Amino acid sequence: MKKIRTIVVNRSAYADNDAEASLLRSYLKDRGVFLVNVMSSPGAGKTTTLIKLINALKDSYRIGVLEADIDSDVDAINVAKETNVKSIQLHTSGMCHLDAGMTKKGLDEIDISDLDLLFLENVGNLVCPAEFDTGACMDIVILSIPEGDDKPLKYPLVFSKCDLVLINKIDTIKFFNFDFKKCEEMIKYRNPNSTVIKISALTGEGINQVRDYLKNKIDSWRKS
Amino acid sequence: MKKIRTIVVNRSAYADNDAEASLLRSYLKDRGVFLVNVMSSPGAGKTTTLIKLINALKDSYRIGVLEADIDSDVDAINVAKETNVKSIQLHTSGMCHLDAGMTKKGLDEIDISDLDLLFLENVGNLVCPAEFDTGACMDIVILSIPEGDDKPLKYPLVFSKCDLVLINKIDTIKFFNFDFKKCEEMIKYRNPNSTVIKISALTGEGINQVRDYLKNKIDSWRKS
Repeated sequence: MKKIRTIVVNRSAYADNDAEASLLRSYLKDRGVFLVNVMSSPGAGKTTTLIKLINALKDSYRIGVLEADIDSDVDAINVAKETNVKSIQLHTSGMCHLDAGMTKKGLDEIDISDLDLLFLENVGNLVCPAEFDTGACMDIVILSIPEGDDKPLKYPLVFSKCDLVLINKIDTIKFFNFDFKKCEEMIKYRNPNSTVIKISALTGEGINQVRDYLKNKIDSWRKS
Repeated sequence: MKKIRTIVVNRSAYADNDAEASLLRSYLKDRGVFLVNVMSSPGAGKTTTLIKLINALKDSYRIGVLEADIDSDVDAINVAKETNVKSIQLHTSGMCHLDAGMTKKGLDEIDISDLDLLFLENVGNLVCPAEFDTGACMDIVILSIPEGDDKPLKYPLVFSKCDLVLINKIDTIKFFNFDFKKCEEMIKYRNPNSTVIKISALTGEGINQVRDYLKNKIDSWRKS
């Protein structure tokens, strides 16, 4: 076997929208609305997880959802149908992520004056959404079993920035070669302060644990 | 259920690298090297598919592989180990895709003078790689069963640009709710000229069909 050479072919050149995101976080704090940014690869189960989670939380909070996609409005329709909370679709016109300005536009459109908790389902993409601070109060990444346990190795930024990592589709674990220990070690290597919870959005396993985690997080935020 | 509103929040502003990509295609044609760009979500099975495909093709062509990732070199190592063909890792330093200039740098590094066929495994991302013409002679997208049948609806560009769509992990079909007919109809709606082949990179099912498709494609390209 030949030795592998590694070539650096470019440097990231994304615009910095950190200042705008900080302003947005203050704006949300002033209004008592906790914004959660949810990121994952396409098909990792963001929408199904949100539906289960919202139904577990909606007796405690007035909830809204911003669904970002390049095209289609199936996710916003599904969330509204399955949870009966306020939901709007954001179309990014081909854009691979949301930044703070786009998120603010979503907030203005959904009207946060009657909300306590707002979920933002980002574009399905494990790379670009992590580059842009949306202004959210916390970030969740969902990694699903079929994607493989090596994703925290290959997509470092999203795992280093996330407060909570949900390992989804654990109901399919016996059909895939997925090493939880190796995966969790790599997640902790990327971010020692992150929390990892195993869930199945399909069966509901682990959802109550996520609900309790979020309730604690919101309580601390309100007191801060 | 409330009516869903859809808000356009931004427009894509990617740089146009079409001219550079066209030059690269002429450069490859002059040298008789057929370049295949392979795209998918993270964890859809690009590397495993390439390993199976290269082993089915390496008696007919002198093959090389460019493995693009944000971090790690596990894919280039695996490909070299499992196929014994020439393979190098391209690191994109956080960049979510490859463009024609980055691809050309990869070609120069691997040295194409002793190759007939070169695979480029793009960054795992169903959005941005489709925005940038790499200069490849053809594009493949891999969609895996666990991601769901709605991906051609939500990620239109990559499906509209691809010559060949491989539906991978068909060995897991009984564990997921995936409607082939609906998915194929949507792929054909995005691109009526695309070919769809069902495969399992794990079991090898469908790989010979992909091999024959590529051989025909390379034959036509050589005669053109």
